[in-house]
Amino acid sequence: MTVRIGFVGLGAMGLPMAMNLVAAGFAVQGFDLSSEARAKLAEAGGIDVSSALNAAEGADILILMVVDAAQAASVLFDTGVADTLAAGAIVALMSTCPPKEVATLAGRIEATGRRFVDAPVSGGVAGARSGTLTIMAAASNDALSAVRPVFEALGKRVFHVGTEPGQGAGMKSVNQLLCGVHLAAAAEALSFAERMGIDAATALEILGGSAAASWMLTDRGPRMLDTDPVVTSAVDIFVKDLGIVLDASRDARAPLPLAAAAHQMFLAASGAGDGKVDDSQVIQIYRAMVSRR
Amino acid sequence: MTVRIGFVGLGAMGLPMAMNLVAAGFAVQGFDLSSEARAKLAEAGGIDVSSALNAAEGADILILMVVDAAQAASVLFDTGVADTLAAGAIVALMSTCPPKEVATLAGRIEATGRRFVDAPVSGGVAGARSGTLTIMAAASNDALSAVRPVFEALGKRVFHVGTEPGQGAGMKSVNQLLCGVHLAAAAEALSFAERMGIDAATALEILGGSAAASWMLTDRGPRMLDTDPVVTSAVDIFVKDLGIVLDASRDARAPLPLAAAAHQMFLAASGAGDGKVDDSQVIQIYRAMVSRR
Repeated sequence: MTVRIGFVGLGAMGLPMAMNLVAAGFAVQGFDLSSEARAKLAEAGGIDVSSALNAAEGADILILMVVDAAQAASVLFDTGVADTLAAGAIVALMSTCPPKEVATLAGRIEATGRRFVDAPVSGGVAGARSGTLTIMAAASNDALSAVRPVFEALGKRVFHVGTEPGQGAGMKSVNQLLCGVHLAAAAEALSFAERMGIDAATALEILGGSAAASWMLTDRGPRMLDTDPVVTSAVDIFVKDLGIVLDASRDARAPLPLAAAAHQMFLAASGAGDGKVDDSQVIQIYRAMVSRR
Repeated sequence: MTVRIGFVGLGAMGLPMAMNLVAAGFAVQGFDLSSEARAKLAEAGGIDVSSALNAAEGADILILMVVDAAQAASVLFDTGVADTLAAGAIVALMSTCPPKEVATLAGRIEATGRRFVDAPVSGGVAGARSGTLTIMAAASNDALSAVRPVFEALGKRVFHVGTEPGQGAGMKSVNQLLCGVHLAAAAEALSFAERMGIDAATALEILGGSAAASWMLTDRGPRMLDTDPVVTSAVDIFVKDLGIVLDASRDARAPLPLAAAAHQMFLAASGAGDGKVDDSQVIQIYRAMVSRR
């Protein structure tokens, strides 16, 4: 029997994910407010449904790839979606959300008798398209076993990071902590080289081949030396993501001095009017600190 | 005619570097206070000399791989070494030193008519042994051309980062900035995962394969999960190296918020009595912050 998947949120990440599920042979009934996104899914062989409630009807698994936890709560509880789900159905929340809010959502779903899988991803739009996402799942063993074949159509690396909902979101926040710190650190390093009269391109070449290397340095470094790069991910994404990290650290009572310092730099960049530009441009704040313009 | 090299400082880095120069066909007259180190160089075909002055006599190039800038100044000026050098000789300082002190030393050498090459290295003891160091040289074009064949026997990557002495040291400080920040960030991330009940080994595997990856995470991460790892590099090395970074940033009037936060964590680790243990153990400070022991 074909596994039936309800998929809510067909954005930059969700649409290619849903299309990969269709390609893997699942019946995917997809909903998004954008009728264009739904049409693209239908073209690929998915089922265009006109509400989240319709996406949930008859689904074995309901995947949410929405903007945030508030939107997930609205989808699940505002129009009766949770109660519409079959008794044995599973809700899989794959958006990046604060651990505490995920735990709250999970509790509300479990109170209705349905199961919940907290499963954020990393790998970005490129990973969503190529089906190479990393999935960080927190769930009971039986719930994860049930969704594993679905997750394996989305990514090569499926990790079971814990049994408590919120731990998946927690793991994602640890991932974003390092991404954000490494990105700000790369800006700090390259701008410091510039300040000392060292050619930043030469510095980048040296650093990328030494113990100073990071994925972020290699990826964002070249765009830091470009004054108007294409936006692959905006400054405001890290304002939000490091915000989630720091909220999680408050809940866990775990001080994160480097993440807190990095967040300040992204806040400064956004405050200076660069919220929508490529996140590599956080380097402009470092440059501005040493030259009044 | 064989190029004659005086080499002062035959420590963990200096001895294998001097031995690589011998292997490359240079005449190497080496000095260290340790007669054992001198004997090892002589065994490898080098010339064991009994003072820095003797190392300088007849040398085309005098390489200093000493502990710090104060020791370099003492070697060069306390016993007449600078004046003993041939008029066309070059002093190459390859230790990690503060940019400002390097510039001062260079000025004193150039005042005697000799040339100065500021050329710190990265790659550690392993790179020194295998002749794969990265060399960050600041010097005039003619001085660098003269020492390049010597440097190429020490490392595959020789970069000309600037013409002002101090810029080599500056580039090395940029390198250490990222190494120190990435190391502290790895500890911050893994301890935060632990705090949320996530298995740190699983977290390390996820992070190492994602955009959160860094050379330091992959190298030091496994040792962070070990309670008593062998010391490959001690906490106090980063207390010193990030100290140099922050001194350089004061001189350059360039704020470095992430490096400053990372330095605090290494200071805390050293203050707690872990100055001599492996630098991966900076994670113990993060753990101590969330559990009174």
